Amino acid sequence: MKKLVNDVHSVVKESLEGFQLAHSDVVDVHFDPDYILRAEPKGEGKVALVSGGGSGHEPLHGGFVGFGMLDAAVPGAVFTSPTPDPIKEATAAVDRGAGVLHIVKNYTGDVLNFETAAELCEMEDIEVRSVIINDDVAVEDSLYTAGRRGVAGTMLVEKIAGAAAERGDNLDEVTRIATEVNANMRSMGLALGPCTVPHAGVPSFELGETEVEMGIGIHGEPGYRRTEMRTADELTAELYEKVKADLPFESGDRVVVLVNGMGGTPLSELYIVNRKVQELLEADGIVAARTLVGNFVTSLEMPGVSLTLLRVDDEMLELFDAPALTAGYRKGM
Amino acid sequence: MKKLVNDVHSVVKESLEGFQLAHSDVVDVHFDPDYILRAEPKGEGKVALVSGGGSGHEPLHGGFVGFGMLDAAVPGAVFTSPTPDPIKEATAAVDRGAGVLHIVKNYTGDVLNFETAAELCEMEDIEVRSVIINDDVAVEDSLYTAGRRGVAGTMLVEKIAGAAAERGDNLDEVTRIATEVNANMRSMGLALGPCTVPHAGVPSFELGETEVEMGIGIHGEPGYRRTEMRTADELTAELYEKVKADLPFESGDRVVVLVNGMGGTPLSELYIVNRKVQELLEADGIVAARTLVGNFVTSLEMPGVSLTLLRVDDEMLELFDAPALTAGYRKGM
Repeated sequence: MKKLVNDVHSVVKESLEGFQLAHSDVVDVHFDPDYILRAEPKGEGKVALVSGGGSGHEPLHGGFVGFGMLDAAVPGAVFTSPTPDPIKEATAAVDRGAGVLHIVKNYTGDVLNFETAAELCEMEDIEVRSVIINDDVAVEDSLYTAGRRGVAGTMLVEKIAGAAAERGDNLDEVTRIATEVNANMRSMGLALGPCTVPHAGVPSFELGETEVEMGIGIHGEPGYRRTEMRTADELTAELYEKVKADLPFESGDRVVVLVNGMGGTPLSELYIVNRKVQELLEADGIVAARTLVGNFVTSLEMPGVSLTLLRVDDEMLELFDAPALTAGYRKGM
Repeated sequence: MKKLVNDVHSVVKESLEGFQLAHSDVVDVHFDPDYILRAEPKGEGKVALVSGGGSGHEPLHGGFVGFGMLDAAVPGAVFTSPTPDPIKEATAAVDRGAGVLHIVKNYTGDVLNFETAAELCEMEDIEVRSVIINDDVAVEDSLYTAGRRGVAGTMLVEKIAGAAAERGDNLDEVTRIATEVNANMRSMGLALGPCTVPHAGVPSFELGETEVEMGIGIHGEPGYRRTEMRTADELTAELYEKVKADLPFESGDRVVVLVNGMGGTPLSELYIVNRKVQELLEADGIVAARTLVGNFVTSLEMPGVSLTLLRVDDEMLELFDAPALTAGYRKGM
């Protein structure tokens, strides 16, 4: 295993230290337990948003802490849920009396630990709601998951619900919007190869020289089939058709498109995927109102891509367009 | 070779099409010949900045076209200089009567083709200046280069000179600032593995299971030595010492730090490298005035990292902090 790490047991801590040193204008990292807060928290009355989960998906979640998105992120070990204690502490740290929304990707460990943390918070009279993100259409149950997995669409929930909290919506409203975003988005990914978790030291799975894993999870969990390598257009069309058919997205819908790199794919290839996505959307009469292309929700250095479509109304689009200032995403600031 | 491409001969064209579809608010891609312009060009009197070079380094250069940075970028085939014609056309398209600065990475093909394009422009009374970027301290001459190579620091020249042009500096002034940035910055990179150029179909070089190429070029050109894999801190210290000793950077200097991913390295590892860089700077009494960590000047999916230090004065820092709105870099907009 060749990785730019020192000790496999201190990967997350050292990475957080380097993150803090790069972004002290935006974030304030707390250690032992580890969580990331905004450098300049908003005052009384604002609903706070907390997310978290295993590390290795950067910039998610810590890279989305800041104005217009999250108030705190709680990183676990690589691909491992954080325990309830840091979640509880981070939640208490950001509560300003207006309540806290937990944004939780649907993995058994995350759901359980955020739930326990929420119970601990309620014992201290902190009001906590949760939205469980399950945008991945690839498989119904999976390694680590009952039901569908939460994947790249999580970033869109953090952006849009974050903007709602920023404009002063109350906890009911922010929860409603986050829930609606989740309900209106679908995602699916593919991998051309595995990634290597530092403390495991070996690739998370094996793929043949010409094989592709369709429906890959963001921890390298199996998808729904392995296929022979095909052209970018053919692979993209398979992602698109699965995603589209599931909601389903229909002619006249307006969507936010997220073409998300899994970490090890050149930006130029993500744009080739986007080209085909936009062609398919146009043929179906679906309007790409906004498009994001880049590495937002990664799986370490995995080569691959995921496609997320989010059906938007005027309100969601307005919130998507609102300013944000985080280490991993910036708009209008 | 597993890549998200269709035809290896149309990689750049299709990628540009997908780029245009994602960023039509910022860029306007011209095809045959291929170059990227700002969607909303500034009017009369502004000095224009044009850069370009082989594709495969995205977001450089096309991702840095927009307010506060470049007026045009000219992409060649992957790792291959664009020919004089598109450079000439792009230059003519962005000239507003105040002259054009060419920002050219020091590779024989690029230098020659930009030079020829400049001569063609002068025949049409377009005033063109050039700054040759040669920030790589690794080797003095190299595959494709006489003298030092231009690498990740190019992005800092585009940012700072772009801001100078935006505030209304004339061609002499913009050229002076670009030249000063180049003179005050030094870079070096390392690779943990190769990348694969699509039309070549095989990795650009081979590295043993535990080998690292120190001083790698952004096209996979050899560095100054191969070494056994060591810890991130040890590898980072070698980059830092080479970069520091060359200018040299000294106690009391203020610097902009750029920890740049080569494409296939997880963000978490780049932050581990940044942690060590900041520790070394502090020990040397060098002030990290600003820090950038991310994939800005890549080599397709190469796993690796480069370090750039730029010694800044108040003017450079003010220009670095000025607003920018491009597909690949945003600040204050």
